[in-house]
Amino acid sequence: MPHKIILDCDPGHDDAVALLLAHGSPEIELLAVTTVVGNQTLEKVTRNALAIARVANITGVPFAAGSPRPLVRTIETAPDIHGESGMDGPELPEPAIELDPRHAVDLIIDTVMSHEPGTVTLIPTGGLTNIALAVRKEPRLAERVKEVVLMGGGYHVGNWSAVAEFNIKIDPEAAHIVFNEKWPLTMVGLDLTHQALATDEVANRIAAVGTKPAKFVGELLEFFGQAYKDNQGFDFPPVHDPCAVAYVIDPSVMTTRRVPLDVELTGTLTLGMTVADFRAPAPADCNTSVAVDLDHQKFWDLVVDALERIGEVDL
Amino acid sequence: MPHKIILDCDPGHDDAVALLLAHGSPEIELLAVTTVVGNQTLEKVTRNALAIARVANITGVPFAAGSPRPLVRTIETAPDIHGESGMDGPELPEPAIELDPRHAVDLIIDTVMSHEPGTVTLIPTGGLTNIALAVRKEPRLAERVKEVVLMGGGYHVGNWSAVAEFNIKIDPEAAHIVFNEKWPLTMVGLDLTHQALATDEVANRIAAVGTKPAKFVGELLEFFGQAYKDNQGFDFPPVHDPCAVAYVIDPSVMTTRRVPLDVELTGTLTLGMTVADFRAPAPADCNTSVAVDLDHQKFWDLVVDALERIGEVDL
Amino acid sequence: MPHKIILDCDPGHDDAVALLLAHGSPEIELLAVTTVVGNQTLEKVTRNALAIARVANITGVPFAAGSPRPLVRTIETAPDIHGESGMDGPELPEPAIELDPRHAVDLIIDTVMSHEPGTVTLIPTGGLTNIALAVRKEPRLAERVKEVVLMGGGYHVGNWSAVAEFNIKIDPEAAHIVFNEKWPLTMVGLDLTHQALATDEVANRIAAVGTKPAKFVGELLEFFGQAYKDNQGFDFPPVHDPCAVAYVIDPSVMTTRRVPLDVELTGTLTLGMTVADFRAPAPADCNTSVAVDLDHQKFWDLVVDALERIGEVDL
Amino acid sequence: MPHKIILDCDPGHDDAVALLLAHGSPEIELLAVTTVVGNQTLEKVTRNALAIARVANITGVPFAAGSPRPLVRTIETAPDIHGESGMDGPELPEPAIELDPRHAVDLIIDTVMSHEPGTVTLIPTGGLTNIALAVRKEPRLAERVKEVVLMGGGYHVGNWSAVAEFNIKIDPEAAHIVFNEKWPLTMVGLDLTHQALATDEVANRIAAVGTKPAKFVGELLEFFGQAYKDNQGFDFPPVHDPCAVAYVIDPSVMTTRRVPLDVELTGTLTLGMTVADFRAPAPADCNTSVAVDLDHQKFWDLVVDALERIGEVDL
Repeated sequence: MPHKIILDCDPGHDDAVALLLAHGSPEIELLAVTTVVGNQTLEKVTRNALAIARVANITGVPFAAGSPRPLVRTIETAPDIHGESGMDGPELPEPAIELDPRHAVDLIIDTVMSHEPGTVTLIPTGGLTNIALAVRKEPRLAERVKEVVLMGGGYHVGNWSAVAEFNIKIDPEAAHIVFNEKWPLTMVGLDLTHQALATDEVANRIAAVGTKPAKFVGELLEFFGQAYKDNQGFDFPPVHDPCAVAYVIDPSVMTTRRVPLDVELTGTLTLGMTVADFRAPAPADCNTSVAVDLDHQKFWDLVVDALERIGEVDL
Repeated sequence: MPHKIILDCDPGHDDAVALLLAHGSPEIELLAVTTVVGNQTLEKVTRNALAIARVANITGVPFAAGSPRPLVRTIETAPDIHGESGMDGPELPEPAIELDPRHAVDLIIDTVMSHEPGTVTLIPTGGLTNIALAVRKEPRLAERVKEVVLMGGGYHVGNWSAVAEFNIKIDPEAAHIVFNEKWPLTMVGLDLTHQALATDEVANRIAAVGTKPAKFVGELLEFFGQAYKDNQGFDFPPVHDPCAVAYVIDPSVMTTRRVPLDVELTGTLTLGMTVADFRAPAPADCNTSVAVDLDHQKFWDLVVDALERIGEVDL
Repeated sequence: MPHKIILDCDPGHDDAVALLLAHGSPEIELLAVTTVVGNQTLEKVTRNALAIARVANITGVPFAAGSPRPLVRTIETAPDIHGESGMDGPELPEPAIELDPRHAVDLIIDTVMSHEPGTVTLIPTGGLTNIALAVRKEPRLAERVKEVVLMGGGYHVGNWSAVAEFNIKIDPEAAHIVFNEKWPLTMVGLDLTHQALATDEVANRIAAVGTKPAKFVGELLEFFGQAYKDNQGFDFPPVHDPCAVAYVIDPSVMTTRRVPLDVELTGTLTLGMTVADFRAPAPADCNTSVAVDLDHQKFWDLVVDALERIGEVDL
Repeated sequence: MPHKIILDCDPGHDDAVALLLAHGSPEIELLAVTTVVGNQTLEKVTRNALAIARVANITGVPFAAGSPRPLVRTIETAPDIHGESGMDGPELPEPAIELDPRHAVDLIIDTVMSHEPGTVTLIPTGGLTNIALAVRKEPRLAERVKEVVLMGGGYHVGNWSAVAEFNIKIDPEAAHIVFNEKWPLTMVGLDLTHQALATDEVANRIAAVGTKPAKFVGELLEFFGQAYKDNQGFDFPPVHDPCAVAYVIDPSVMTTRRVPLDVELTGTLTLGMTVADFRAPAPADCNTSVAVDLDHQKFWDLVVDALERIGEVDL
């Protein structure tokens, strides 16, 4: 039986790949897609999400817009990495579906509460504002959700400060809320995603799929790769967000380690750091894990396989 | 035309007086009552709110329960001041009305958005969790609400630490959200409410009303007075929450001063302090004010008048 | 018997008045003068201190330079209030004495340790860097010093932020050290010193003394008054530092209140705030007090009397 | 020409090995030894330092006691790791030399200032209180010292919290001072020293030296190993402090990487973390480095060689 998921995202180049991977994988049943300010403004990332739906011909799945700003802090976006549109590179088609009228927070709550307990996985790949608001508005989510598998943070790597990652640092209070709830939580952070490089070989495999969605991904990765080269000195871009989806599809795609996690809220140098305490074996009630090592081959196999299953789309 | 208000409260002895004042005043149209964890757990303060409705025969007004916990911090309540029930002293009658099925956050949003812009005043007398969640879920509230008149904080006085007040300190992140929105906000803090003492003369006036609701208030104030004497060395209890309602009824009941306000989130000694900057005249775009001096006589006149207008109730 | 004091200062217009008051008062025996970065750089305030010695013909008292920077933070000075020289206004004479070769920290330690226990009072009127370094290098100072009477801080007033005063905020870690030692400590803060205004009547009384030192003070206050008018909107300048000296001369010049005090080190809005806890009577072991109300007449009588005793000086 | 060093330490089992390594190495000229509160109280670590001098027959080198407490924080010691004496295990002989009468801070300043600029290396292996006080009292140290090679911190490892190391966390303000000065600074942190394990083979090599000092080291490592096994789950104890000395003797004993470093002072979870920013190549003016990989064989060769050179001592 496929894994029921809600993807909460801020597309974003790698969010797009995450959404395509979820849509194309037979192991995933995509219940809902929600958007949140992050890589760009809510308006832009929501338009981008709908454009991806059009590219991959995703229908019958509700898409809803969520929070236009973080809980406490002022808005930070990442145009240096994702461009003015938030998904620069390919031409973005006009959306073919309409937004669900509900707020993302209510769509998340309604979806989780209308399914059997322990059956819905949340996959946040942006800031955690929506997820935090949802669990504060409906506290039963913490017991009802199967698990949270999020892209964000890093136990030894940062990108938005020396030790903090973008998704966490732009809304650290939301992250603190999400990391401290009772649900099982797996942090797929930069430690892992910096291994998910879209090498030339990867780009060639994607190009070889030969469909319009694959070409779309190719153009995304080309822009993304250049941005990462220019801004952070990477030879190939780390494609963060689909790693979280891949873990839900097949946990063997990465190793994880159970470890207490928390989010720093008051540090001058460390605001938004995801602090992992590796000093001792995790206590019995520890419900948080971190992703450690990626099986690069298996990961990209999943992505390419999903693109092949999506097949050609009439754009 | 009376002032349309939503009372967001955590009854609480003084919340009870605030609710009775709002109900009994011809200058107030009570649109909704919402509850939030604070003086006691959400379950208890919600039951207390319904009990007050029964005492004062409040009907036709939706009551909804809100957040059972602060945004980021763990729960703190104040049983030393409000007792185990949150409203110790009088016998609490069984509620006669049912809760609105909506979450307090949605009731607040629906109520404000369904009235003309600039016509609804929010009067929070507890922690600001609900109000913060509401404005984050529906950002248009910040322009739609007429004003926020809240009991909480203090520019020179604290009660939950040397410089922080209970309602703010139990959810400082929520307070930070509320204080930094664009709506006009008046902070009726401890500087003001410590002037609203229920002296013996006040108690006698309330007793002289002679009705069951007045007797109920008398018993509340008796318990509250003893708790303040035992815990904080007051001769008479400061009856905080109705001050905010009184200001909406008649602004001349107190003097206010326009001054920039913000909430401290990282201080070791000052967490949750409401920092007012009195160093210079407030800038033109300053939308926050603090209450300074209370007209004690006029304030209690309003309360006694409301009790007289409520009249006798069949309990 | 006069009070033996060490004046640790950063002249500074009001430091100059403090030094003249100490020198001219028969109730004070000035053991040493030490300087510290603050109103201006260490080099400038040290030169200013020597210039004041020349103006008032202070001889036989060691002057030593101390710390050129705060313990942890970067240097902040106050040229808007004190001008480029740190003591703009009058012409500054060439010094007639040489600096003591010792570091201020060692001069303080040597002076205190070479006198009877409990006989030497420290009067810091600048940042607390020297005093903090001294008590950390020689921990016995905490028991050996009679008391610390400092100008700085404020329990309800700030001038370098909404709630922090310059002397504390420029080196909050040093202040934290000094406020948490065991010695009796009286904080003469802005709450008090904003009452020590050099009104026109005060200026006239000083002018009437008719000596060169008095003329020097008059010119200092003229510049200082204009700076306070331009920068902080005062009608007359608050002459902070001599208040601390005046309290040592005659405690009846002000009322004080014993209250626990501490210094905020991590607040975003409140860094360097001197937090006083007025919620309950001070505990028996509380060794800190704050100055509350000034006897304006008596204070200026002391200053004028000191100037008269200094008499004419050949410049 | 040997490297002139001042060893500032808090013996401490591994401090003892560091001191013996420095004393026994022909590449080191030991100018002074200073002590600071840390592993145990100042009184105890100072007595221990003198005992080590007796064990190794160190004469002609001034030993001075320094700070009995951190700059701002209250005292924390590590009896779980170092025992009640601070150096439990071997019997400690009576000291044969007397303490220098100077404060450690003055001994450091005098020693550095009386040698040619750029010739004296500071090796702190405890909290940084003395070094911080020294450079604040004599700012010219920052240019005069050749370099600071310290044991402390960790860029990816903590032992006194999830992300902070003992020496830094017990006096983070002192560490902030030392890390932000202009001198070249190499942090030999837990990342490196957790590689310096005293394995059974190491213990056997030391035992094979056969002298009383070697036996003393053997007994230290036995106690230390058991303490690390019991408290932190190590199979063999990491012998931290001599790593810093070894690096001065022969930099090829470890690899280092130049990287900006700073110390977190306000974090709730991260207080005292040594934050390294690996995101980009270090800027040209970066004067801080971290130790990365240890040559385990070469390191212990240096220690055993030093013990052999020290030879037998008449205890």
